[in-house]
This record gives sequence, C-alpha cells and structure tokens, in this order.
Amino acid sequence: MKLTNNHKILIVGLGLIGGSYAEGFTSKGFEVGAITKEQSSIDFALEKGIIKSGQNVVDKDYVQQFNVVVFALYPKVFIEWIKTYQDYFKDGTLITDVTGIKSSIVYEIQSYLKETVEFVPAHPMAGKEVYGVENSNKDIFKGANYIVTPTDKNTQEAIDTVVEIGQILDFKRISIITPEEHDEMIGFLSQLTHCIAVTLMNCKESRHLVDYTGDSFRDLTRIARINEDMWCELFLMNKKVLLDQMDLFIEEFIKLKQALENEDVETIKEMMRLSTLRRSYFDK
Amino acid sequence: MKLTNNHKILIVGLGLIGGSYAEGFTSKGFEVGAITKEQSSIDFALEKGIIKSGQNVVDKDYVQQFNVVVFALYPKVFIEWIKTYQDYFKDGTLITDVTGIKSSIVYEIQSYLKETVEFVPAHPMAGKEVYGVENSNKDIFKGANYIVTPTDKNTQEAIDTVVEIGQILDFKRISIITPEEHDEMIGFLSQLTHCIAVTLMNCKESRHLVDYTGDSFRDLTRIARINEDMWCELFLMNKKVLLDQMDLFIEEFIKLKQALENEDVETIKEMMRLSTLRRSYFDK
Repeated sequence: MKLTNNHKILIVGLGLIGGSYAEGFTSKGFEVGAITKEQSSIDFALEKGIIKSGQNVVDKDYVQQFNVVVFALYPKVFIEWIKTYQDYFKDGTLITDVTGIKSSIVYEIQSYLKETVEFVPAHPMAGKEVYGVENSNKDIFKGANYIVTPTDKNTQEAIDTVVEIGQILDFKRISIITPEEHDEMIGFLSQLTHCIAVTLMNCKESRHLVDYTGDSFRDLTRIARINEDMWCELFLMNKKVLLDQMDLFIEEFIKLKQALENEDVETIKEMMRLSTLRRSYFDK
Repeated sequence: MKLTNNHKILIVGLGLIGGSYAEGFTSKGFEVGAITKEQSSIDFALEKGIIKSGQNVVDKDYVQQFNVVVFALYPKVFIEWIKTYQDYFKDGTLITDVTGIKSSIVYEIQSYLKETVEFVPAHPMAGKEVYGVENSNKDIFKGANYIVTPTDKNTQEAIDTVVEIGQILDFKRISIITPEEHDEMIGFLSQLTHCIAVTLMNCKESRHLVDYTGDSFRDLTRIARINEDMWCELFLMNKKVLLDQMDLFIEEFIKLKQALENEDVETIKEMMRLSTLRRSYFDK
C-alpha cells in the first residue's frame, strides 16, 4: 500500500523508539494509536499529543482499526505477542518492527504468521542512553540509518511501504539487506561496541578517574550505560555472530599489542594510517 | 612566581595545543611569543593575534626575554631541545610542558637541567582530531582536566605557578599526581582507548558500513583518526604501562565473551549493571 493519511498506525510498545515513531507519524498527519503495558506511558503520550488513542490491554476491536502495526518490543516478547494475538489483525495489515536482531526472529515469525498479513522487518539505527516514552523524540531519526531486511516471503509492495515508513520518519539513509547481513553488520557495529564499552568500565574502579579523563574515554564508554535486560537478550539472540566479531576484534587487538611489545613501529603506524583512512568514511 | 601580566610567556611548538595555550594566555593579557618550525604557523598566529612575536629558529636573545616557557613538542624532540638549548634560558625561567607521557621524560630532563631553571610537568587533557595552529582554540580547555605531575626536585612555588597556568587557561579540574600515577591513568583512559579505536577500524573494510551504522560505532572510533607519529611515540614511551592496560582489557573482554559462550546471563547482566553504575560518574 502507498501510505496516506487515511491509514492508521498502531505502535505496540511505547518506549523510547516506539514513542519516537509515534511522534514522527503524528507530526506527518497520521492517526497513531498505541498498545503498551503502562497506563502512565499512554497518559504521557496522549498529553504530549503524539498518539490519538492508547490501551494497556490487547483488544481485538482496537487492533482491527489499524492498517500498519509497528512492534517496538523486546525480541522474545515480540515473538510471543504475535503467537498469542495474530488472529486480531485484520486482513491486509502490514506489520513491521524495530528489533535490533533479525535472523533469529524474522524467519520464526514469518513461519507461523497467518497469510492475510505481512511482516517486513526493519531496524532504525537510532537510540539514546535513556529510556521510555518520556524521552522519545522524532528528531533522533534525522541523519540516522534505517535498515529493511525482507525475506523471500515478502512482496515488493510491502517492502516499498516499509521503505516509505523510513522516508516518512526522516531517516537519512535507507538500506535493504538480508537478515543475515544485518546481523553481521550489527554484531560488529553495535553489539561489539557495546561489549567493548561494558568491558572498559569493568576494568577498574572508576570514581577517581573522572578527575583525569579526556573526552576519549567518555566517548568510548557513553554506551556502557546499558539496559541489561534488553541487551543481554539481543546478545544471546545473535550469539554466534557476536562471538565471531569478538574473536575478530581480539585478533586485531593482539596484533597491535604484539607490535607494541616488539616495538615494531612500522606495523603500529600502518594500523594507525589504516584506521585514520577508514574512519574518514564515517564523517557525517 | 605569582604570574602577572608583566611576565612573558614563550610557547615552543605552535600546533593545536601550543596555539590554544597561546590564545588562552593572550586573551588574559599576557604577552606571548612562539618558537616553531614553520614560518607559516607564526604568520597565522600573528595575524590571528594570538602571539605578539615568533621565530622559526632558536635564538638566545629571544629566549631570554621570557619568564615562562611552555613546551608543546613531541616527547623526543622536547628532550633534544632542552639538551641543545638549555643554556639559552635566563636564570629563574619556569618551564612546563603538555606532553602526554611523563615518567619517561620528566626524570631524564630534570636530571640534566641546569639548576637556575625549574621544570614542572603538566598535561592538559584536551585535544581534537585535527592538528595545527590553524585549528587552535582556547575554548577546548573549558570543562577539561589539567594534570600537574611534579617530582621531589620541584619547589612548591613553581608547582603553584603551573597550577595557576591551569587556572588562567580555564581548565575545570586541576589535579596534582606523580608521573607514575599519571602514566597509569593515561595508559588506561587515553592510550588504551586509542588502541581500541584503531583496532576497531582495522577489523574490516569499512566503506559500506557507514550506510548501516548508528552513533555507537562513530563514538568509539572518533579517535581512530590519529597522528601516527605522535601516538606511536607516546605508546612506545609508556610501553610497559600500556601493555598492562591492554592485558587488563583483554582479560575482562574474554570474561564477557565466555559468559556469552556459556549463556551465563547473570554474569553478563552483572557486568552491564557495573558498567552502567560506573559510567554514571562520568556524566558531565
């Protein structure tokens, strides 16, 4: 479907990302509803004007009002939700999500999802070290990347609509890759970096270090403030890929360490020149 | 000495940090001179009004005009400079520096420095991923840390003056620790983080990754754009300490990796809770 303002959008899970989606859609003239656990989140979102309605229970009549449903839940809760309530979707409903891992959920959900609805997975590469709808902000998507990971089961029309969602929400770059490519990329770019940040903060008692630090340490550990329930689940659901990325990192790190041990100046400088070159690609 | 605007300050090495010192002192009413290799740097600084005079050779009559000399050179060049030209300092000159490692230079310089001048080492914890006086800016010190690392050879009066320099330049926190404490701290906070950033960028060809990345990877690799000559020298001059920090990091990283392998959720979450707690100390 080509999205118009006649289409109604339901957000399931009104946290930081769900709330930011709600705000983005509402600001573009869509009618947005929400289902989420906490009544206080619904009250906040209603008051802020980023949803038009909300419920803290899953009600068939309510779900049937919507054409597009965006899931912003933890992976396992998402899988369970679809299993339990998929009969509530009206025929032709388009489902998408914001989940940070893909292979371990996409194929499973598509395997049992009823044929009259379609699930096209997506992952907005945006976030903050704060949580909850109270911190949501549609502007976190500006300049950010948006990844769509369809499978053979998806139709071009539905894929196009999920790409369109990325455009409506003002993402900067929209990519279409496989769930497997996504998981490797995210294992490296996002999960490995979170592992590194967590590790750095586990190395030493740190209270006194703040008097001596520059910005480097602050930057490398910003994401060490981490939601342990969500991230532990994401790590485990991408376990094999993440372990590979960790091994790759250890291998390169030890190469640098050995070069330092051997005072092998040329290898150290070569690694620094390569890192300088490659980092330049990431300038915004 | 208690610094007054009658004291003249010489910056040796007019790069990013030297230039920012020059701008800071000039903005507070001091007369600032500079000795640096490139005439173009002097011309730029004169035009910008952050120095009153400058020379691209080392001239005794010029050096003798100054009461305070700040060295902003690479470590080995700094050591050689003092060896070659220390007779040029007039009696009572106070020397300080901005060098990123301390033990391996401080004791050596103090061992042969003539008795009529005093060297109190310092390290401003500020920088940018750009170089040269053209990018200098006194505001990089605002909110930053400044570390003074005196030895038994230093007088309280000279230490006080170097602390005062930190105040004049508007640093936020000023600490006094030993050269050894400095090197361990910086080995962990600064050098290890640079090793990690360089390693991350060496793991994979990265040109296509920019389409998928979030801010985490950008943050962790900002410092991967690195001046290989300077940082290689700094790493080698703090080799033993840095290798210890790298070992410590590997140990903790492997602990996290093994917890993931074993799906030991409690250990993973415990590390994440600790990292979240400790990172909160670093909020500005």
